[in-house]
Amino acid sequence: MERVLIYDTTLRDGTQGEGVSLSVEDKLKIARRLDEMGFAYIEGGWPGSNPKDSEFFQRAGNLKLSHAKLTAFGSTRRPNSPTPDSTLQAILDAGTSTVTIFGKSWRLHVDKVLQTTLDENLRMIADSVRFFRESGREVIYDAEHFFDGYKDDPDYALATLRTAREAGAEWLVLCDTNGGGLTDDVAAIVARVVQTIGGKIGIHTHNDSELAVANTLAAVKAGARQVQGTINGYGERTGNANLCSIIPNLQIKMGYSCLAASDMRHLTELSRYVAEVANLAHDSKLPFVGASSFAHKAGMHVNAVLKVTESFEHIAPDTVGNRRRILISELSGRSNILYKAQQFGVDLNSQAAEVRSLVDTIKRLESEGFQFEGAEASFELLVRRAQPGYSPPFQLTDMLVIVEKRAAPEVLAEATVKVKVGADVFHTAADGDGPVNALDTAVRKALLGFYPELSDVQLVDYKVRVIDGNDGTAAAVRVMIESSDGHGTWSTVGSSVNIIEASWLALADSLEYGLLRAGERRSVSSAAEVTKYER
Amino acid sequence: MERVLIYDTTLRDGTQGEGVSLSVEDKLKIARRLDEMGFAYIEGGWPGSNPKDSEFFQRAGNLKLSHAKLTAFGSTRRPNSPTPDSTLQAILDAGTSTVTIFGKSWRLHVDKVLQTTLDENLRMIADSVRFFRESGREVIYDAEHFFDGYKDDPDYALATLRTAREAGAEWLVLCDTNGGGLTDDVAAIVARVVQTIGGKIGIHTHNDSELAVANTLAAVKAGARQVQGTINGYGERTGNANLCSIIPNLQIKMGYSCLAASDMRHLTELSRYVAEVANLAHDSKLPFVGASSFAHKAGMHVNAVLKVTESFEHIAPDTVGNRRRILISELSGRSNILYKAQQFGVDLNSQAAEVRSLVDTIKRLESEGFQFEGAEASFELLVRRAQPGYSPPFQLTDMLVIVEKRAAPEVLAEATVKVKVGADVFHTAADGDGPVNALDTAVRKALLGFYPELSDVQLVDYKVRVIDGNDGTAAAVRVMIESSDGHGTWSTVGSSVNIIEASWLALADSLEYGLLRAGERRSVSSAAEVTKYER
Repeated sequence: MERVLIYDTTLRDGTQGEGVSLSVEDKLKIARRLDEMGFAYIEGGWPGSNPKDSEFFQRAGNLKLSHAKLTAFGSTRRPNSPTPDSTLQAILDAGTSTVTIFGKSWRLHVDKVLQTTLDENLRMIADSVRFFRESGREVIYDAEHFFDGYKDDPDYALATLRTAREAGAEWLVLCDTNGGGLTDDVAAIVARVVQTIGGKIGIHTHNDSELAVANTLAAVKAGARQVQGTINGYGERTGNANLCSIIPNLQIKMGYSCLAASDMRHLTELSRYVAEVANLAHDSKLPFVGASSFAHKAGMHVNAVLKVTESFEHIAPDTVGNRRRILISELSGRSNILYKAQQFGVDLNSQAAEVRSLVDTIKRLESEGFQFEGAEASFELLVRRAQPGYSPPFQLTDMLVIVEKRAAPEVLAEATVKVKVGADVFHTAADGDGPVNALDTAVRKALLGFYPELSDVQLVDYKVRVIDGNDGTAAAVRVMIESSDGHGTWSTVGSSVNIIEASWLALADSLEYGLLRAGERRSVSSAAEVTKYER
Repeated sequence: MERVLIYDTTLRDGTQGEGVSLSVEDKLKIARRLDEMGFAYIEGGWPGSNPKDSEFFQRAGNLKLSHAKLTAFGSTRRPNSPTPDSTLQAILDAGTSTVTIFGKSWRLHVDKVLQTTLDENLRMIADSVRFFRESGREVIYDAEHFFDGYKDDPDYALATLRTAREAGAEWLVLCDTNGGGLTDDVAAIVARVVQTIGGKIGIHTHNDSELAVANTLAAVKAGARQVQGTINGYGERTGNANLCSIIPNLQIKMGYSCLAASDMRHLTELSRYVAEVANLAHDSKLPFVGASSFAHKAGMHVNAVLKVTESFEHIAPDTVGNRRRILISELSGRSNILYKAQQFGVDLNSQAAEVRSLVDTIKRLESEGFQFEGAEASFELLVRRAQPGYSPPFQLTDMLVIVEKRAAPEVLAEATVKVKVGADVFHTAADGDGPVNALDTAVRKALLGFYPELSDVQLVDYKVRVIDGNDGTAAAVRVMIESSDGHGTWSTVGSSVNIIEASWLALADSLEYGLLRAGERRSVSSAAEVTKYER
């Protein structure tokens, strides 16, 4: 299988995306993870452009990468400047064995943005590449706006590549910087470059036309052997080419080799890890790695997938570390509910009346603002509570939550709760960093004597959404909580016009489900049984 | 220009997407809007499959569409059933002039899912299509899993198409139902169908390989003249082909005609409208129509775009009704801030010290959890407050918020506030549907006597995000509020470990900005001046 080298620019181009921001610590964590996955290159940033990127390269020396080459990114020297100028010097000082230098291919940019001559632009490319070669660096030359430049003036665009190659650039990477390229054009231009310039050619695309993945695949078919992109397609405007889609397409469907097959099984995990470190919600619709990628909702599809999986799945989900999900919603029929219940070990086949009543309850709660698709733990509790003999581990009878701001700058939050466990009643209070935290703390305080296992349960994400915007602050809100006990995570939902009540409902489900998991862990020792709760 | 007919299936395939749910009212609203845009076909649903879809068709009679044909969707008759069976009858009863019938192209599905013979499958197709033709309907035949079926057994797949065409189907639509197709394969297979079967051919793709748009464009180049897809790419798993990207690619870049150019300018509005009706956050990274599609963050790009717009923009944003944005973040330099300030009429060019201090303030607040990218009104207030002579219209000195739950099922929320306007102090209280609503109501009550214009200001969206998940309920939260005064909307941000305080900060900015807008509207009469606040 022919090898295609994966070049990740999440840490640099990825952070140009709106809402994407990574601390130095975040960048180091992600770099470590990309290296473990076996990526060929990791672009760390543009040293000298901001203090964060400079600090990253100072600290990156301790990373001890075992697969990937770390690269420092930056522009050619400035027009009419000595070589090296401060730009090149800062890149050199980053101390990486590979550097990635971008230069202009498009006359428009040379004239209007750099405001220099076509010849000086060629000298800037030659001088900069030669400087790094003479300093013993491997040089990757990124031809910015190459496709736009080629369409405008193919001879000049090719001349910039020739200049970089003659000065010693190992790789010439063709960039569709504005993301406007159409697939056939990209394929034809890459083929032309491979034919006339040859050597190692790479591709760097953006998603402005929703074609970044297709354009990258077409470029590889035309001879490119390095692919630049980002995890989850993070990046400027609509994003960079999404490596999480490109890698499986190239390797599973097109027969190129990018990663070890065992690493491919960690692709979903990697995608979610990077989202988490970047503190971004993981997009459930992401191809291959999204939570919805193999999620089936229509009764007819559920039915077919249960008969033969490839009927509605283009690849086996576990090849990329993802999994099949059957969704519960107001559109669900009996078969979705029976299947889901079976997944967590409740057989409802003989309980036709109970299933009908569950379907009705779900429809009613969803109309009130609950949403069970993203809160499978709350759905499971709904099913379990409907089973004979289920008794809730606790019950909140009273609560009082106070938030107060006076002259002092701090805002106070305090909660009083009365909780029943069996026949016992606990009345206690706690303050907290906010009202939900105060409530959470007070309830745990009341319950911990009875249920010490709750000390492991942590809330890891908390989201609120107004359900019908037209009612302003009086609208119903939906709270989704994600919790963890160190063994896995689960999601619960609450809905109310009162955010504290909605939070309480989701919190109560979270704690009840945490107790259920702890009970299961005590009663079974097989790892397989535990993982069934990892959802 | 050659015409490509746009077939929208947002109302049917779109609602199969995780998290997508539309009421009958929602569907009617969207259908009306799609018709105004000049779409050729609107697929309304599958009558008979659920009560909602049946009701939709009953009420759709009153829609009086002026451009689009409404179509009822459904499967061929069941194996070994009479024609019509109840499935076909329900579709007929919907009373549309066009029906879309899907049938099986892939032997795997015939054998394993339908569990019938290849011949009976052909009879099901023929009988069903003929039934609708004889009932005077235009028939669109959707060949489900056509590409997978063709790869498995081209002769059988083509035989199903021939059967449908001979029975009277006007359109044969080739579906990549599992979304696994690669672009070159799709192009080759469509070309083969155009060559061997001919007539009107359509394309229907899914995004499981992140290639739905590319595959659709390739199919059109190969001869397909009907494109099925959804607004924003909503749909099962990773979604359907996204019409909001396909239409501008076909029309602006490839020279086909889909919509009137004047309608194209409403594409962004349509995309956001459908998201709003579906109650989904509008994905800012959507190509062409996303809020980030033409957003520039890197100082170097901002600089270049201000010199020559096409330097980093693949099309003019207003062609699709979108607009350029310059982002403010910790990565922003002076030029981003100067540009933004100029946009709202504050010239900071002579205030170097103020700009430096603004850059520092933004960095500090962002490190505490604020985020100004999505809260441009809060940024504007930050700049205005730093101007000499700015005096805040009001000040909250004290607040007390109580949430209480006792035996009664309702949860009570009450807020007490002390607000200063100039030298006057107002001390008042209100209850509300939740603590934020109570606070909002109390503050408005205190302020309305002074500022009657606040009665127009409404909160339209309210979002909360935990900033560092590891601290559980004690983590800092960021609240983003979107407000409207009937003339436009604006976004503000607050951050604190206490959700009530964070909400208050965002709410206070929202009200202060609302007053600023009202003041501007009073002092200027030109419409142009007002729209500068429409962000």
